[in-house]
Amino acid sequence: MRASQFLIATVKETPSDAVVISHQLMLRAGMIRKLSSGLYSWLPMGLRVLRKVEAIVREEMNKAGAQELLMPVVQPSNLWQESGRWQQYGPELLRITDRHNNSFCLGPTHEEVITDLIRNEIKSYKQLPLNFYQIQTKFRDEIRPRFGVMRSREFIMKDAYSFHNDQESLQQTYELMHAAYTKIFTRLGLRFRPVVADTGSIGGNASHEFHVLADSGEDDIAFSDSSDFAANVELAEALSPPEKRKNPGLALEKVATPGQHTIEDVSIGLNTSASQVIKTLVVLGEAENEETAAPLIALIVRGDHKLNELKAEKIPGVGSPLQFASEEQIKGIIGCGLGSIGPVGLSIDSIIDRSAAELSDFVCGANDDGYHFIGTNWGRDCKTGRIEDIRDVVAGDPSPDGKGILHIKRGIEVGHIFQLGAKYAEALKATVLNENGKDQTILMGCYGIGMTRIVAAAIEQNNDEKGIIWPASIAPFQIAIIPLNMQKSVDVAEQSNKLYQQLSELGYEVLLDDRNERPGVKFADMELIGIPHRIVIGDRGLKDGKMEYKGRQDSENQHIDISNIIDFIATSIAGV
Amino acid sequence: MRASQFLIATVKETPSDAVVISHQLMLRAGMIRKLSSGLYSWLPMGLRVLRKVEAIVREEMNKAGAQELLMPVVQPSNLWQESGRWQQYGPELLRITDRHNNSFCLGPTHEEVITDLIRNEIKSYKQLPLNFYQIQTKFRDEIRPRFGVMRSREFIMKDAYSFHNDQESLQQTYELMHAAYTKIFTRLGLRFRPVVADTGSIGGNASHEFHVLADSGEDDIAFSDSSDFAANVELAEALSPPEKRKNPGLALEKVATPGQHTIEDVSIGLNTSASQVIKTLVVLGEAENEETAAPLIALIVRGDHKLNELKAEKIPGVGSPLQFASEEQIKGIIGCGLGSIGPVGLSIDSIIDRSAAELSDFVCGANDDGYHFIGTNWGRDCKTGRIEDIRDVVAGDPSPDGKGILHIKRGIEVGHIFQLGAKYAEALKATVLNENGKDQTILMGCYGIGMTRIVAAAIEQNNDEKGIIWPASIAPFQIAIIPLNMQKSVDVAEQSNKLYQQLSELGYEVLLDDRNERPGVKFADMELIGIPHRIVIGDRGLKDGKMEYKGRQDSENQHIDISNIIDFIATSIAGV
Repeated sequence: MRASQFLIATVKETPSDAVVISHQLMLRAGMIRKLSSGLYSWLPMGLRVLRKVEAIVREEMNKAGAQELLMPVVQPSNLWQESGRWQQYGPELLRITDRHNNSFCLGPTHEEVITDLIRNEIKSYKQLPLNFYQIQTKFRDEIRPRFGVMRSREFIMKDAYSFHNDQESLQQTYELMHAAYTKIFTRLGLRFRPVVADTGSIGGNASHEFHVLADSGEDDIAFSDSSDFAANVELAEALSPPEKRKNPGLALEKVATPGQHTIEDVSIGLNTSASQVIKTLVVLGEAENEETAAPLIALIVRGDHKLNELKAEKIPGVGSPLQFASEEQIKGIIGCGLGSIGPVGLSIDSIIDRSAAELSDFVCGANDDGYHFIGTNWGRDCKTGRIEDIRDVVAGDPSPDGKGILHIKRGIEVGHIFQLGAKYAEALKATVLNENGKDQTILMGCYGIGMTRIVAAAIEQNNDEKGIIWPASIAPFQIAIIPLNMQKSVDVAEQSNKLYQQLSELGYEVLLDDRNERPGVKFADMELIGIPHRIVIGDRGLKDGKMEYKGRQDSENQHIDISNIIDFIATSIAGV
Repeated sequence: MRASQFLIATVKETPSDAVVISHQLMLRAGMIRKLSSGLYSWLPMGLRVLRKVEAIVREEMNKAGAQELLMPVVQPSNLWQESGRWQQYGPELLRITDRHNNSFCLGPTHEEVITDLIRNEIKSYKQLPLNFYQIQTKFRDEIRPRFGVMRSREFIMKDAYSFHNDQESLQQTYELMHAAYTKIFTRLGLRFRPVVADTGSIGGNASHEFHVLADSGEDDIAFSDSSDFAANVELAEALSPPEKRKNPGLALEKVATPGQHTIEDVSIGLNTSASQVIKTLVVLGEAENEETAAPLIALIVRGDHKLNELKAEKIPGVGSPLQFASEEQIKGIIGCGLGSIGPVGLSIDSIIDRSAAELSDFVCGANDDGYHFIGTNWGRDCKTGRIEDIRDVVAGDPSPDGKGILHIKRGIEVGHIFQLGAKYAEALKATVLNENGKDQTILMGCYGIGMTRIVAAAIEQNNDEKGIIWPASIAPFQIAIIPLNMQKSVDVAEQSNKLYQQLSELGYEVLLDDRNERPGVKFADMELIGIPHRIVIGDRGLKDGKMEYKGRQDSENQHIDISNIIDFIATSIAGV
C-alpha cells in the first residue's frame, strides 16, 4: 500500500479525553475515531488489525469444529421474555420499539436467539453435539463507556454456543474451546492467562476467563510461576504458610499505644512489621431466627493481608452479603473502638485466617482503647477459634495447586468460556428426543471473545514512549519503507518503488511512505503506528549500495547491502 | 467438510409464507431462518455463500483504490439533524433512545457519519480524492418486509463514499466504480445490466442502478441487443418509429361502436389491431393563475402503448403531479364519455406521442358516445398538435442510442451508484482549503451494493425444479461426494474418504455427504443446495474401477475411471 493512497490519520497531541494508553495510541495512530459516547469508527489502519484478529479467531474456531453462522443484531423481545432476561437485564440492554410498536433489543449476547434456532432445527440426540459461532456486532448501553474500544457500547464479539446431550460431552467441548482459546491468544502474540472464574450468579458448572496481562487491567490475576494455575486474586485460595508456628518466645504484655489506630500506626509505634500485627474486623453473623439480633463475629487476618469478603461470606454462620458491625455495636458488646479490638479475652466468636493462625509473639488490640498486647500467642493467651481461608492471596504465596509461588499481575479480560448447563435450554424448552424416545433438555456451553477489545488489550501490553509495538501476527503492515527525499531523487524513487513491488509480490504487507513529508514525521508516524520492520532508503546509503533496516524495538540501525535486503528482511520476519 | 459435522438443514415442504422462489429455496436448502419479521439468521450453508460474495466485492473495491473502514451501526441523531434527514426520513428510520435519553438511529446508510469523519480529518484539497467503503449491517424498518433477505429489515450492504475537489474528479471515480461494479457482478456469475436511473429527489448529477435480470424482479429494464444501453422502462426514451408516415389511403368514416369502450373492444369490433387505434387520455394542464381553472389537455398514444406519466408530467403546460380529468369534466367540455374521445374536432390542446403521430388511416373515438372514426389521418382530418415522447418503451422499439432494438426484462436492483454532489457536504459544512487557501465544499459520490440481497437475486436468476443452481464463484461448496452405503461398505468408505482428502488438499471445497441417509435423500439435498459438481461412489461402480460424475445441470451421469477422477473434476471446474 502506498501511504499517499491510504488514510494515515496520525495525531501529535494526546487527546484529552483518552485516559488509558491504548485509547490514546489508537486515536493518535489513526486507528479509530469517536463518533459518539461509546461509539467508534474503525479507520482503515485500525480495521486492518481487527481483520487479522478475526482471521486468526475464525481459523482456530473452524479447526476446533465450530460452525460459523450469523444472527441478527436486532432481537425480538419475546425470546428474552421466555428466558426471563427481559426483566432481569438492567438498562445495559438497549430496548427498542419498531414502527408497529413491537419490542426488540440490540443484542448484547445471543443465547436466546441460538437456543430458539436449535430448538427448531435439532430434534434428535443423534444430531448433538454441535458448536456454532459468529463474529457479530453487539451493543451494551454502558452507563459510563470508557477507555475507547476497551469498554465501548457498540463492539464486536466472537460468540460461540455449544449443545450437548450430557455433561461429559459439554466438558469435552469446553476443553476443546479452552485449547482453541489458548491457541488463539498464543497466535495473537499476547501474554495471557486462562483464569478460573466465578460461576456465581449464572450458576453454571465451570468457567474460565482469558486475561491479557497488562498493568492497566481492571482485574488482579494471581498465577503460579511453575504451573498453569491462574485465578482472579479474589478467587485464588490462600494456603497455610509452609513454615509451622513457632513456640512462644515472649511474655504477654499490655502496652500503651495512644493515638495508634491503624496497622501502620501500631507497627511503626511498636517497631515491628505489619505481618507481626493482627487485624481484627467485626462483621454480622447469621441471626438464629427473625426475632433475635445478628451475633457479631470477629474476622482475624494478618496486618499485611486483606480480608476477602467473597470468601468470608461463604463461611457458614457469617452473614451474606458481608456486613460490617457499626462502631456502636462494637462499643456496646466489646467495649472498645474499631482500632483496638483483639482476640485476648474476646467475648464473641472469631474466625482466624490460616496465615494469622500461624503467628506467634504477635501484636493485637487489647479491647481497651489506647492499648495493645505484644508477645501474644494463640492457645496460651487467647482461643484459637475456627481457622479458615478468608484473605486475598498476595505475591509470594504458595500456589494453591502446590506448584511454585504466586505472582500477581493486572489482567484485561478478552475471553470467557462458560458451562451454562441447562439454564437457557430449560427456559426455552430446547429438548431432543433421547435414545428412549423421551424429551431431554439440552446442555449448553458459551464461549466469547471480545474482538475489538483484543486490539486495545494488545496495545496496553505492547507499547513504548514512541507508540504501539504490534505483535507480528496482527500488525497492520509488516514492513514500512521510508524513502528520503523521494520527490527529488530519481534514484531513491526508483529503488523504493522497486523494493516495494518486490516485497509486495513476495506476499509481504508493505506500507511505502511516499507522502511528501519530512523524514522525521515519517519516522515518528511509522513508530507510532507500530510497524515491526522499517527500511529507510536515501541517496547517501544508495551511494554505498546500502539501505537502512531497523526493527521497531531495535536501538540501532543496520546498514544492509541492497543485494541482500530482501533475504535480510525475510529472515528478520521469519525470526520474529 | 463432512456433512455429519455441518448443519444440513434442508426442508422438504415449501414454507407457506415464502412467495418468491429465492425465499423458498433459501429456507428449503437451509441457508437462512427467520427470527422475526424481516430478521433472518444466516445458517452455516448460507453464510458460506455470503462470505464469498463479500470476498469478491472486497477484492474489487480494494483494486479500485477504495479503502475499507467500519462505522458503527448505531448513529447519533445530531448528525441526521444537521443533514435534515432526521425530519425527512419516514418511519423506515428506526429511531432509538439510550439510557441517558439521547436519540440515535440504526443506520440505513452512512452518509452523515462518513461526512462527519471527513470534515474532521481532511483539511486540504491535496488530500482528495478519497474513496472509503465498508461492509456493514444496516437497518430499514420496512412497513412490510417480504421476500426473505430480498427485502428484509436488517441486511448487509457494501456502501462506499468518495470525496472530491471538483466534478471532473467525481466523474472519474464514478466511472471507476461503474467499472468495478461491472467486474464484481461479472465475477459473481450473474446476468446483469447497469441501467440509467432517476436522480430525481436527491438531485444529484448522475446515477446508475445495477440490476440482476430475473423474471421475479420488481423493475422493468429495457436494454439494447446491440449496445450497453439499459434503463428502467420508465426512463428509456421512445424514439419515433423508423418508418415514416404513409399517405392517407382511406376516407374518414364515422362508424357505430355501441358498447365498445376499451381499445380491445374497438379493435375486435372493427377487426383491426390495437396499434392502428389511438387512445386519447385527458389530464389537467397548468392553470394560468390561481383563479382560473386548470385547462384540459389530451394525451394521445397508440392503443398498444402505455402512457408514461413521468415523461408526460415533465412536459411544459402539463400539471405535475399528473392528474387525470374526471368523467364530469370531460363530459362538460368535450361532450362524451371516457371511451369515446378522439382528436377529430377536439376543442382542447393535445400532445401526441411520437409513434401515434406516425400513424395513418387510424381508428379513434368520435367525441360522440357509441361512435368511432375509421380512416382517420393527421392534418387532413385533425390537428397534428405537439409531438412528444410520452409513452413507455416496448420490446422491439429502437434503442435510444441508435444501436439495435430494445429487449425488456425484469430486474432486481443489487447495486446503485450515485453522484451526490454537494448535498451532504453543504449541509454538514464539509470543506477543504483550496489552492487559494479558501474554504471549498467537497463533492461526494456514493456507491452501494446489497450484499445479502445478491444471494437471493443469484437464486432468482439461477434455479430449476430441483433447487438452486449456484454460479461457480459463490457456490457454498464446489464438489459434493456422495458415498452409497458408506456405513456398511469398507471399500466405499475408504475411496470416499481418500477422494475427499485429496480434493481438499488440492484446495477444492468439498462436502462429503457421510450422513446415514438414503441415497435419494442425499441426491435431492445436494441438488437443492445447488452444489455444482457431484461424484457418487458406490460398490457397483468401484467394481469396474469407476465413479459417477454429474454436473448440477447435466441430464446424464458420466462414469469416470478412478485413476482419472481428479483430473476430470479439475477440468470440469476449470471449464465452468
